[in-house]
Amino acid sequence: MIAMKKFLNKPETFVEEMLEGIYAAHPEVTHAGDDPHCFVTANPVPGKVGIVTGGGSGHLPLFLGYVGEGMLDGAGVGGVFQSPSSDQILQVTRHVDQGAGVLYLYGNYSGDLMNFDMAGELAELEDIETATVVGNDDVASSKPGEEHKRRGVAGIVFLYKVAGAAAAEMKPLSEVVRLTEKARARTRTMGVALTPCIVPEVGKPGFEIGENEMEIGMGIHGEPGITRKALEPADAVVDEMMARIFAEQDYAPGDEVAILVNGLGGTPMEELYIFYRRLAQLFAEKQVSVAQVWVGEFATSMEMAGASISVLHLDDELKPLVARGANTPFFKHIAA
Amino acid sequence: MIAMKKFLNKPETFVEEMLEGIYAAHPEVTHAGDDPHCFVTANPVPGKVGIVTGGGSGHLPLFLGYVGEGMLDGAGVGGVFQSPSSDQILQVTRHVDQGAGVLYLYGNYSGDLMNFDMAGELAELEDIETATVVGNDDVASSKPGEEHKRRGVAGIVFLYKVAGAAAAEMKPLSEVVRLTEKARARTRTMGVALTPCIVPEVGKPGFEIGENEMEIGMGIHGEPGITRKALEPADAVVDEMMARIFAEQDYAPGDEVAILVNGLGGTPMEELYIFYRRLAQLFAEKQVSVAQVWVGEFATSMEMAGASISVLHLDDELKPLVARGANTPFFKHIAA
Repeated sequence: MIAMKKFLNKPETFVEEMLEGIYAAHPEVTHAGDDPHCFVTANPVPGKVGIVTGGGSGHLPLFLGYVGEGMLDGAGVGGVFQSPSSDQILQVTRHVDQGAGVLYLYGNYSGDLMNFDMAGELAELEDIETATVVGNDDVASSKPGEEHKRRGVAGIVFLYKVAGAAAAEMKPLSEVVRLTEKARARTRTMGVALTPCIVPEVGKPGFEIGENEMEIGMGIHGEPGITRKALEPADAVVDEMMARIFAEQDYAPGDEVAILVNGLGGTPMEELYIFYRRLAQLFAEKQVSVAQVWVGEFATSMEMAGASISVLHLDDELKPLVARGANTPFFKHIAA
Repeated sequence: MIAMKKFLNKPETFVEEMLEGIYAAHPEVTHAGDDPHCFVTANPVPGKVGIVTGGGSGHLPLFLGYVGEGMLDGAGVGGVFQSPSSDQILQVTRHVDQGAGVLYLYGNYSGDLMNFDMAGELAELEDIETATVVGNDDVASSKPGEEHKRRGVAGIVFLYKVAGAAAAEMKPLSEVVRLTEKARARTRTMGVALTPCIVPEVGKPGFEIGENEMEIGMGIHGEPGITRKALEPADAVVDEMMARIFAEQDYAPGDEVAILVNGLGGTPMEELYIFYRRLAQLFAEKQVSVAQVWVGEFATSMEMAGASISVLHLDDELKPLVARGANTPFFKHIAA
């Protein structure tokens, strides 16, 4: 049994105290009304399409960390691994609406789907136009052709980047939706986990992974993956993950991609770069050039050890949107 | 016993493969000559004071992660928890020297001291002027008045920021040294560890920490701290750490500080913000305003769970240097 060794005061105030810390540290974000779970930018841009995300806590920088300049406008913040309520999402929606409509962009989980749909219906009653794009990049969670059943994981950061850049360029909602859907169709993620994580209010891991085992394809809440087996050398792990992505996306010589190597929380950055070393080799072999590389923690499961690889197959339209600058408390991208 | 669950190919190529990944991902850095351990910027600025750091691997983003625009020019990269050689430091020195001299800025560890001193002597023979500032911010490692015996830990990031900004403003070496020494005198760090880490070539933890214990003041290589005891609520941990910093630095109402809340590797960002929440309360009580807050992983010990708090007591000279923009592969600061 793994003991819970967390810095916290009380499990039941974990999320609220985390939010207090974030608001204290970053005056560029605030909350709509009295509820700290209704996380919004302090600097809305008049006339811009608003972009709202949301989901459970325990995944920092996901979800709220991408609220800021060139990215998102608001996030509904749920309890650890729990959806925000439809009312919280509605409050965020009202706040970020600047007359150009609001895009809901979040991961494919049943609680989130239900609450965002309900919030959208309520918003329509108030004459706020909404549209929805649901992230479903996790290759491991369903077979090809059934992408709508797939979970949303770290690849959503690419969708945030594309949607945020399109909105920042003052494109209309329909165009932001079109570009985000295109990015979604061209984004794939595979993950691998080495250890579980501990939900504060539970106090112990929800599952275990054997001492020398890894689970390929495990979800960011510990959802079952594709295969559990003995830990292999890093290159073999990357090759196995990438075989599934290569099987679904046709990369031709001369094509360009953006790559996100994401640590799940407990895995050191050194190891993420050992992963990227192998990825660079694989894409060089295919004569595909890597136009953007982001390595670090983008979508975590608290202290879970593990990593995921997300690849966005760029085209002429998506490339400049990914390259555009962004500046949020948790994500800073300086355009070259 | 904690098993070694790391993504790597072979322990003996851990550092080289990590470096390969970093060079592949970030074309703005390269190596001087054939040795990948001689890490340098690909874009040296003519006439600027060069700043060179270095130390053991296993601490990313430390040390090499701060090489880049507005920060450092080179880093000697040692094996995991091992000093780079004097020859490697000398090669880096030659490469980054742009005729205005070179500042050596690294942490207070005997191997590093020896090798940097030797490199500096060899550089002088080649008519490259060098100066040295040694980071010694770790309050836990020696008593007040014996700061020269203290280890350098995460607070060195503030020294990098100040030195880098001063050099970027084309100040002469003597002035860069003066400002960096001033920042050093006004920077204090306290750390707390919850778990050990594993050096790849060793394969098991070098020490253990009891299931419900924490060690206040432990060093980033597991050096003994001040006290080992039962894990307390986050606020109590912060209060105990800050009592030692407050005892050494006089903050008057109206003063300003910069704060770095650093995760040691295995501690989730959520918990670092719970720490910052308490810090914001403590400084507000003292009517001291927080001009900069950086929360995340800045100086790690691979997968070690734990955190450190660094505080830089600003003044009119230091404040704009800390606020100045910087852009390295691992550290992006966008000036307000």
